[in-house]
Amino acid sequence: MNADDLLVKRKRGSKRFVIGAAVIGALFFLVGILIGFFSHESELHPSTPTPKPERLDPTQFMIQNVDAQFLRNKLQNFTSQVRMAGTDGAASLAETIQSLWLSSGVENVHIASYEVLISFPNQSEPNKVELVNKTSGRMIFTSNPFEQELRPAERNSTVVSFTAYSPKGLVLGDIVYVNYGRVEDFEFLRNNLSINVHGKIVIARYGKICGGNKVLNAEKFNVSAVILYADPADVNQEFNGKNDEKTHPDSWWMPSVGIQRGTAYTQRGDPKTPGYPSTDYAYHLDKSNMLLPKIPCQPISYGDALHILGNLSGPISPASWHGTLPIEYRIGPGYDNATDIEVKVTVNNYLDNRPLYNVIGTIQGSEEPDRYVLLGSHHDSWVYGAVDAHSSSTALTQVAELFGQLLKRGYRPRRTLVFCSWDASEPGLIGSTEWVEDNLKNIFERAVAYLNVDMIVQGNFTLDVSSSPLLQDVLYTTAKQIPSPKKEYKTLYDLWQANSMSNINDREPRVTYSLGAGSDQAIFYQLAGVSSANFGFTFDPKKYPMTTYPLYHSSFDNFYTFEHYLDPEFKYTQSMTQFWAVLANNLADAKILPLKVTRYSTAVKKFIYDLIRVYEEIWKKHNVHTDPLLSSVQNFTEATLLFENRLSSEKDLEKKPYRMRMYNDQMMKLERAFLNFDSLSERPYSKHIVFAPSASDLNTDSFFPGLTETMYDIEEELDKWNQLKEQMSITTYFLQSAAKTLSENGML
Amino acid sequence: MNADDLLVKRKRGSKRFVIGAAVIGALFFLVGILIGFFSHESELHPSTPTPKPERLDPTQFMIQNVDAQFLRNKLQNFTSQVRMAGTDGAASLAETIQSLWLSSGVENVHIASYEVLISFPNQSEPNKVELVNKTSGRMIFTSNPFEQELRPAERNSTVVSFTAYSPKGLVLGDIVYVNYGRVEDFEFLRNNLSINVHGKIVIARYGKICGGNKVLNAEKFNVSAVILYADPADVNQEFNGKNDEKTHPDSWWMPSVGIQRGTAYTQRGDPKTPGYPSTDYAYHLDKSNMLLPKIPCQPISYGDALHILGNLSGPISPASWHGTLPIEYRIGPGYDNATDIEVKVTVNNYLDNRPLYNVIGTIQGSEEPDRYVLLGSHHDSWVYGAVDAHSSSTALTQVAELFGQLLKRGYRPRRTLVFCSWDASEPGLIGSTEWVEDNLKNIFERAVAYLNVDMIVQGNFTLDVSSSPLLQDVLYTTAKQIPSPKKEYKTLYDLWQANSMSNINDREPRVTYSLGAGSDQAIFYQLAGVSSANFGFTFDPKKYPMTTYPLYHSSFDNFYTFEHYLDPEFKYTQSMTQFWAVLANNLADAKILPLKVTRYSTAVKKFIYDLIRVYEEIWKKHNVHTDPLLSSVQNFTEATLLFENRLSSEKDLEKKPYRMRMYNDQMMKLERAFLNFDSLSERPYSKHIVFAPSASDLNTDSFFPGLTETMYDIEEELDKWNQLKEQMSITTYFLQSAAKTLSENGML
Repeated sequence: MNADDLLVKRKRGSKRFVIGAAVIGALFFLVGILIGFFSHESELHPSTPTPKPERLDPTQFMIQNVDAQFLRNKLQNFTSQVRMAGTDGAASLAETIQSLWLSSGVENVHIASYEVLISFPNQSEPNKVELVNKTSGRMIFTSNPFEQELRPAERNSTVVSFTAYSPKGLVLGDIVYVNYGRVEDFEFLRNNLSINVHGKIVIARYGKICGGNKVLNAEKFNVSAVILYADPADVNQEFNGKNDEKTHPDSWWMPSVGIQRGTAYTQRGDPKTPGYPSTDYAYHLDKSNMLLPKIPCQPISYGDALHILGNLSGPISPASWHGTLPIEYRIGPGYDNATDIEVKVTVNNYLDNRPLYNVIGTIQGSEEPDRYVLLGSHHDSWVYGAVDAHSSSTALTQVAELFGQLLKRGYRPRRTLVFCSWDASEPGLIGSTEWVEDNLKNIFERAVAYLNVDMIVQGNFTLDVSSSPLLQDVLYTTAKQIPSPKKEYKTLYDLWQANSMSNINDREPRVTYSLGAGSDQAIFYQLAGVSSANFGFTFDPKKYPMTTYPLYHSSFDNFYTFEHYLDPEFKYTQSMTQFWAVLANNLADAKILPLKVTRYSTAVKKFIYDLIRVYEEIWKKHNVHTDPLLSSVQNFTEATLLFENRLSSEKDLEKKPYRMRMYNDQMMKLERAFLNFDSLSERPYSKHIVFAPSASDLNTDSFFPGLTETMYDIEEELDKWNQLKEQMSITTYFLQSAAKTLSENGML
Repeated sequence: MNADDLLVKRKRGSKRFVIGAAVIGALFFLVGILIGFFSHESELHPSTPTPKPERLDPTQFMIQNVDAQFLRNKLQNFTSQVRMAGTDGAASLAETIQSLWLSSGVENVHIASYEVLISFPNQSEPNKVELVNKTSGRMIFTSNPFEQELRPAERNSTVVSFTAYSPKGLVLGDIVYVNYGRVEDFEFLRNNLSINVHGKIVIARYGKICGGNKVLNAEKFNVSAVILYADPADVNQEFNGKNDEKTHPDSWWMPSVGIQRGTAYTQRGDPKTPGYPSTDYAYHLDKSNMLLPKIPCQPISYGDALHILGNLSGPISPASWHGTLPIEYRIGPGYDNATDIEVKVTVNNYLDNRPLYNVIGTIQGSEEPDRYVLLGSHHDSWVYGAVDAHSSSTALTQVAELFGQLLKRGYRPRRTLVFCSWDASEPGLIGSTEWVEDNLKNIFERAVAYLNVDMIVQGNFTLDVSSSPLLQDVLYTTAKQIPSPKKEYKTLYDLWQANSMSNINDREPRVTYSLGAGSDQAIFYQLAGVSSANFGFTFDPKKYPMTTYPLYHSSFDNFYTFEHYLDPEFKYTQSMTQFWAVLANNLADAKILPLKVTRYSTAVKKFIYDLIRVYEEIWKKHNVHTDPLLSSVQNFTEATLLFENRLSSEKDLEKKPYRMRMYNDQMMKLERAFLNFDSLSERPYSKHIVFAPSASDLNTDSFFPGLTETMYDIEEELDKWNQLKEQMSITTYFLQSAAKTLSENGML
């Protein structure tokens, strides 16, 4: 080897050196790029102390860890005493929930307390409904003040029955049967039977519309007092007019001694602070300015109703008014062969200021802590409330527990989760209203969705889902992730699809867009424009054509009933809890929000087309033009389509945080585009122009209330045609406005 | 060299190889990291076609390129004809502006047109004020229907003078002098002089409050008609009672023939569509439901006012009521030695629906296209409008032109700029109101700031700045970037500081927080809660104690006056244009928004403390507790301090897009936290609870209007004490609410 050779070798070595270094350099380079690239990731997770373990799949973790035994134990505990709002039972349950959440690792757990005006029955002077002799004053019959115990284990069932916020009063008079107490029922009496209910006591059966609206209708027709009862036709399908052996505790049917409770309050929140939270500095309305029911009302059992209705005189009511009591269902007023008998209603309710206790806890989002996914249910109940609502408050506690466990394992979703256990929901959504009013600005700005469960299981047939159209798709995709609680189906989606027909597309499970004001989602949806859903497992409505499950709001809605007849294995509860948890995570952790704006335009289009089909001719006659409205529907529809096209064709969106946030904000805020702060001032809690709790039934929705409710009685009030034209214009404005919020350049 | 040697050498080579490769690898690694890191940057600028050239400093570019010659030429062109809203003059100027912006490269330039109800004078039957003989009906004196030409070049000055929205009418009667026509002036007449103005014609001088409120006050006191004139005391300081040689065209002082115009409309926007845009589908109120002035009103010159006021009988008015006309300023009613003379006011105005033409253009933001910085001024004027408002509309066109040029050079700010040239501002902010109503949802969600200029130069002494507290700091930092137009100062800030005392801190230039409803910012601030500012160069208020510059709203506010007396070199116009452009860029391009939340709490604290100082004793007497309010001020103050501490201590924030956006949103949305959609329903255009156009003068603000305005006349109306307690509670609520929007966890 000579120097030249060495030179060659060196050159070769040098070449090898260069190539090798280049290869290694390139590798380092790539690694560098990757580190550089992903260094952002960690910057984007400033509050995540540890990186997400690779193998932890939060969805699978939650599905696997929802624990039927946990749900069972907690339900037994939660239903062990009366949890009526404003009593120690509700207060101590709030404490229990608070400590459970704290120990689960939920963050920022606290009680949000407000002092509110709550209505109570007088335990020592119970309310009653009597039959008395007009001349002698002798009492002929008196109703039971509370529900008799039917099982030895049934404790504390001596809670006096009442209708919340019914005023104290003693009313004597003739009685009239008014079927379900709907406006059309009162109108039928007036128009078809010429029966004037002015100054009369009326008796109405529960069902079809909420109790509060029955009382409100009675007030409008100048009735003096209202008696409510649940007819066996609506709560005991096996009733044969004689025995009630097959009722609770031997089935889920309402026994003849059962009493359904409720509230006559048709506003929402503390009556003394409408629009504002009941904080220590709050201005209180005088009682005379509060919007409270004006006439006494008392609920009784169908066993007692039989005495009141049994011998009524007057015409026989139409067949559709007949329940299944062994009577003729005459209208009244007065009694056959006993003109000296009258009805006496005694109500001794009182109002008191009491603190309520909402429990609030959060899991702060890792990357978008200022975006909230809220989950809520209430922990007050009329009596023991197994179905309504502790099946749900226990499930919420399970969901909180699971997210707490995930947090300990290093998993923190992108967005903040907020767990809300509401107090005083039954008397008038008071806990949620005060809290939303207290936090309105932040909820309006930051909430992505509110997911409510009130009665997680009231049957075992299928899912019952009410929702904003925006959430419809994520409800479906989530249901596809959850195993079916029935063996014959693979997923919850399959079960839901098999047992429910869609309202829009027959291939999809049914979702109604009617959120009503029957549970706490109404406050989020109507006051803050937060896309909301409310869901649970329910019975087959064809087999059981009932408004609610039979023991609803009675003292027999207890743990015994739940474990014997509702969900013995807790598998439906478990399934819905899985669904709730995974749904929340799907909304809280997705980079691109799973909200579907075209669902909104499809829904809007359907409702507007339906309206026009019904009213087209009469509108034409009165010069009400629908062309601008139809154009706005078209514009909104196009805007939603264009938006989704842009979103899906945007390349590498997940790497562009600002654009991602922009799209997410547009989807999230679409719901807010439908809030009208000005025009529904007569109904301060209804600000959504597409869906609003119906003026005639708080528990259902009017679609485009400005239009539909103006049509009511329009033939009698000619000025309403101008109101209708105004509402047509307002509706068009909001649809155009909503379209703009989705346009690429919002200025056009 | 043996094999061993070779081996050693190889080893050495290998070692060298390894070290060398490692060094190179490390270099590549670092480069890789950098590339990987910055690869995000380009992802974050998806809509910027070319990277920003390194040397282009947009601030310096704009400072260097605001062109006095451009401003001069455009002002001459813009003021070349009458630009009254609803006439061809305003329409053709909108077209001119549109084409200028288009050729500048501004994006999405379009006309936003609305058909609105505008008030016009009748050119063939001009309005007039006469003195007539009661018995013979003989006319003794009649006012000039329009301003005489004072220079040969003054064209088209035959625009009939009128007060917009004053109804057609003919009123005969006695006349009473009411000074400035403020509530206190009317009350003084009633309480101190026992003069009843019921059914009388009144004559008021312009100044102190806006003309519309003078008419509104007169209506409330049941006056039959109003005559307005600008007293030489307020518009001609050199007036000596005899000649007016030193007035226009020989100075900026108002000549005796000059007539100040204005509007009597005290609502905002098209009277037929309150709350909604006047689109083709809009519902129109009946005229009977529109909130329009009810009594005729006509403005006259001080030359003509001399005839009306000269021989009035009745008591001599207080000294403070005296102007500088050579008369005694008696109150009336009636005339000395001439009981058969009365005043006749003839108004022939009419209303007509006309399209208005707003010009809108944008420069879409590179990274946050859904965040808007808006710049606006109006292009309608009562007559030629050199100061009001074409000095501003030309400046806006210059700013648009500069951003267009920057765009061509590859500079696109982070956020979207929106240029707005408003039509129909003078009659009642109609163009801006309709547009904001049309785009309310997007403006509410997305607007960072609105920067208004109405009269860019009405003097050459110092800056006159009204602003939301949030913008105060960026106003200062921007002023420090702009060279002073006066040689004795270095920067605009220095000039401003030297010539203005601060209202809060003597070392800072004066910024008032009073945005009023005198120009278009009111709509953004009050309807949409957008932080706004309004600014211009003005005269020395000590030297010239006037409400406006002398020729305000007269036909003599023309190009001749502007170039001779206002800004001959256009250097103040130039300086303010630089300020406006750089301010907009500072807001549109800063990563962290330059909004200062502690300014808000300082302002709030001062106003509340001032209020309590004034009312403490009487509040105590009436059991109005201020402790909760004071706590809320304290909470809000702490929240702003904590927020700013968090913001400044956050490390590497500029690399964390989500957190940056979160902080920016919190700052931007703070202003929205003060909007009350419910409670100021009697004044639908006033929704801000901290600052609202005063109920007694649209051009100034009430601070905490809910509290201060309830105190008015409270001794007479006892029910107001409850209203005050309610307002105290509402104010506390909004301050607590605002504090929450700034807290780290908004739920607490």
